[in-house]
Amino acid sequence: MDVYFTEEGSVEAVNARTASEANPRLAEVMACLVKHLHAFAKETQLTQEEWEVGIDFLTRTGKMCSGERQEFILLSDTLGFSMLVDAINNRRPEGATENTVFGPFHVPNAPIREMGATISLDGKGETCLFEGRVIDLEGNPIAGARIDVWSDNADGYYDVQQPDIQPRWNNRGIFVTGSDGRYSFVGIKPVSYPIPDDGPVGKMLAQLGRHPFRPAHMHYLVTAPGFQKVVTHTFVGDDSYLSSDTVFGVKSSLIAPFERLTNGYTAWRSPFDFVLVPIVIEKASPDFKP
Amino acid sequence: MDVYFTEEGSVEAVNARTASEANPRLAEVMACLVKHLHAFAKETQLTQEEWEVGIDFLTRTGKMCSGERQEFILLSDTLGFSMLVDAINNRRPEGATENTVFGPFHVPNAPIREMGATISLDGKGETCLFEGRVIDLEGNPIAGARIDVWSDNADGYYDVQQPDIQPRWNNRGIFVTGSDGRYSFVGIKPVSYPIPDDGPVGKMLAQLGRHPFRPAHMHYLVTAPGFQKVVTHTFVGDDSYLSSDTVFGVKSSLIAPFERLTNGYTAWRSPFDFVLVPIVIEKASPDFKP
Repeated sequence: MDVYFTEEGSVEAVNARTASEANPRLAEVMACLVKHLHAFAKETQLTQEEWEVGIDFLTRTGKMCSGERQEFILLSDTLGFSMLVDAINNRRPEGATENTVFGPFHVPNAPIREMGATISLDGKGETCLFEGRVIDLEGNPIAGARIDVWSDNADGYYDVQQPDIQPRWNNRGIFVTGSDGRYSFVGIKPVSYPIPDDGPVGKMLAQLGRHPFRPAHMHYLVTAPGFQKVVTHTFVGDDSYLSSDTVFGVKSSLIAPFERLTNGYTAWRSPFDFVLVPIVIEKASPDFKP
Repeated sequence: MDVYFTEEGSVEAVNARTASEANPRLAEVMACLVKHLHAFAKETQLTQEEWEVGIDFLTRTGKMCSGERQEFILLSDTLGFSMLVDAINNRRPEGATENTVFGPFHVPNAPIREMGATISLDGKGETCLFEGRVIDLEGNPIAGARIDVWSDNADGYYDVQQPDIQPRWNNRGIFVTGSDGRYSFVGIKPVSYPIPDDGPVGKMLAQLGRHPFRPAHMHYLVTAPGFQKVVTHTFVGDDSYLSSDTVFGVKSSLIAPFERLTNGYTAWRSPFDFVLVPIVIEKASPDFKP
């Protein structure tokens, strides 16, 4: 190999520079990144002008980021990268509730509410009873599970997006299960909404002929002592964006029934059970010989 | 295939969203980018925490960019991506002068100087006579070639980095060849210098155990009617950073002799010939049948 950079040996030339004392995991991740970035340029025969477009896009994406806006996360989301990382890190056995993207709108320390209470504080939207159980893989109820829920309001905005208009903690709350593992609360049937699309990522979506919408969903963060955390949504089964979620968050198992009630005190009812996987403490194999 | 996102089908799920009316080249480039980004996450089994580090790194890199500082270009340079794109777009026949990175310090419309004139206006550094010919692949002189040159000063800074200290156009100039194709000018023997390393890219280099230095070099932009533009440097052959240029710009063919003169009016002499490739107008093949 040439001691200097060549088109053919470009990956090796770069990765050979990493010092042997560098963090091994950092070195591994960077070597793989360089390999794939270079393969991308070679396969596409990327032009100088296209490289300039890329540099400008990344720069504008960085400039768009602020305390309230994370354009690089939107980029990761819309390229399916966030969902992929989530999938890689949350493989679960058949029957367990699947994860999906966390999203940017969770707020910690929401009010803990009485079971069955309402989270819709602005009185807007079609009321919906959400109910079900938190159970283990064998169907046994899990007591003391914390169900942290949040959704947009009937106009498609989370409370933190409209702090001057919506009541604080609108469409948010935490519910804790008793010995029967049951939960229930009243919210609204969520509505679909676009991700912020007035920045570089929105322009990218437009140029790819993609819309910026997410199908309607209720967010859940379910935790219980001794069980793996579940970060997920349930999706409204009749949403027209279900098969084209702009951040690829939909999984078949997360599409929940929304039943129209004619004589209930809510307009809709959406049942869903959360199935949690126990945390297994990894032990050395019995064959392990030190 | 599942209609929704799956770990296995992640690339197809994302790329299937691109509309058929999207620009075909954009669709091709994005599909390849998504393929390699997802392969990177899968091969490294990227963790959620590592993803967060990556988002934060990109965000800080974007925030560092300003009118005078392009941190994403530094990132591209230090990952060998800039040199790779340059190589892909400037393949030349054996014997032709090779390209290297343009760099951020060129200023258009430098003064056109008399052949043999000096470009060092601050009187600092070891003087050097740069001379040679601009020729074609058969060795014939090229008349009317424009040689736009620029280098750092003896302290390792370009004039634009020190507008209050250095004279305007210090170590810059344009020279135009006559019928003999010869050029000559007096500059200084350039010195090695670090790229700006007080940002995220500098931190990345440090964590990889890499230094931020470029070996000493003189920049050239050589153009002539009917010939392909050459963007290149010549490198000082005894520089200790030659085999570890932090932006991978060195090619064997660009290492120039620097001869110590004992009785010349400059301290050094560096001869180098530029060999240009004619622009060939692509014609339809004679076999072409419409």
